[in-house]
Amino acid sequence: MPEAASAQATRAVIGDSEFDRDTALTQREPGVYDIDLSAGWTIINAVNGGYLLAVLGRALADALPHSDPFTVSAHYLTASQPGPAVVRTETVRTGRTLSTGQASLFQRDEQGNEVERIRVLASYGDLDTLPDDVRTTAVPPALPPMDQCFGPEDGPAPVDGSSEIAGRLMLKLDPSTLGWALGKPSGKGEMRAWFGLADGRDPDPLALLLAVDALPPTAFEMGLTGWVPTVELTVHVRCRPAPGPLRVSITTRNLAGGFLEEDAEVWDSAGRLVAQSRQLARVRLS
Amino acid sequence: MPEAASAQATRAVIGDSEFDRDTALTQREPGVYDIDLSAGWTIINAVNGGYLLAVLGRALADALPHSDPFTVSAHYLTASQPGPAVVRTETVRTGRTLSTGQASLFQRDEQGNEVERIRVLASYGDLDTLPDDVRTTAVPPALPPMDQCFGPEDGPAPVDGSSEIAGRLMLKLDPSTLGWALGKPSGKGEMRAWFGLADGRDPDPLALLLAVDALPPTAFEMGLTGWVPTVELTVHVRCRPAPGPLRVSITTRNLAGGFLEEDAEVWDSAGRLVAQSRQLARVRLS
Repeated sequence: MPEAASAQATRAVIGDSEFDRDTALTQREPGVYDIDLSAGWTIINAVNGGYLLAVLGRALADALPHSDPFTVSAHYLTASQPGPAVVRTETVRTGRTLSTGQASLFQRDEQGNEVERIRVLASYGDLDTLPDDVRTTAVPPALPPMDQCFGPEDGPAPVDGSSEIAGRLMLKLDPSTLGWALGKPSGKGEMRAWFGLADGRDPDPLALLLAVDALPPTAFEMGLTGWVPTVELTVHVRCRPAPGPLRVSITTRNLAGGFLEEDAEVWDSAGRLVAQSRQLARVRLS
Repeated sequence: MPEAASAQATRAVIGDSEFDRDTALTQREPGVYDIDLSAGWTIINAVNGGYLLAVLGRALADALPHSDPFTVSAHYLTASQPGPAVVRTETVRTGRTLSTGQASLFQRDEQGNEVERIRVLASYGDLDTLPDDVRTTAVPPALPPMDQCFGPEDGPAPVDGSSEIAGRLMLKLDPSTLGWALGKPSGKGEMRAWFGLADGRDPDPLALLLAVDALPPTAFEMGLTGWVPTVELTVHVRCRPAPGPLRVSITTRNLAGGFLEEDAEVWDSAGRLVAQSRQLARVRLS
């Protein structure tokens, strides 16, 4: 990954990074945007759901009068492919402190017909205008220091090894949630990691949309293998993240009837809970 | 409440109950439905968000090829009023096991213009076709027996006392989360209750959409007073509920910047986790 390596030497900044370039949209007309979905954010052959969420989130940030996603609900319809796509947005309501919008991403199938890939409904606001009050009982995940955690580059274990996205992310997994990679899943529905962008770009609200769906599925630690496609994912951005690496904790409590929830929490370097998400995913029981 | 009292004597059934009558829609054309929003489900003057969710959920159950809500994401736009409303649905995608739809509820303002009240994006399936596998670490909330819990009818404390919805629900709150009603909030973001419909109708998936937003706000137990309007609420229905009362547990961990999340779990009489929800709500700090 020479690109990521050289970028690390000169830390990328918000607005000029792999993530910014690969989520950049070209306005075709008001509210309608073209994008070439990058092959750099794929897992096996599928475009990562968090990357798609960031693309749609960026389109709405442009289309709505408020720029920060507060709550984004996405329903995943069909699998996206790298390549051309169009994002169509609709402004549902604009208010003084919150605006609500909708966005869909479409691609063309082999017959040239537009197919909808993902649809989101979202409310946006301005994080910087919120009061500083915090009353929380949530505590950051107990993660070992980053140099005691492991990423795909650290070993023979195939941790996302066949995925292009691995080269774009700084992902260091807590060894206590890495049993699955060694053939010894813990049986617990937990996954924890340090998270950043490989080129050193600091997190912002759009990067949080990526962070909540970037870890391996908790299902792996529950001893399941195979695909765990997201049906729906909702993320709440609660605070603008401070610069530096994020801590991401994902928990599954209930696997039932072939579906499970994945609850993610994202903490910034200042110890603030900056995002919460929950997704409903399907599992192939094995 | 003579209506509810007489109904209790002859237990209402699914399909013939207050809840069924008040969520009944009249099809105007395919995918478009008229309804008269009942004043029976209001809190102070606002129509309850869970009742609205059930109305929209019922419209989608009719419009989509699958009848059970699996995941429903609602963004609340403007406050609904009792009276006429129209629900417009769109079928987004139909699949073999899941279908995705969208629905909006509109009412007319004083000038006669249609105003959108709430918009939902939802994926539906068939709960009865799911395998029976359950692997869960979630445990039902520790609630005292129902006769040791308290509802608005039990005392001088004004527990939802001024709200019409109180007469439609069987709501018995855990005394340990009732401090707020006695002027002594616990400071914890917790609310727990036994939940049912006052006329004895058993729960079904649509009633779960009501259950997740029927308890007093956790903010009350955190010592806050005033209105806590929902911005967005997503509910996952995980299992068809068994007959009998439900247990509902609501938790808030993070109040920050004037917003909080409310996580609800709903358990049925058979001890199954039948629904999970999370909402983002605004609070007026006081």
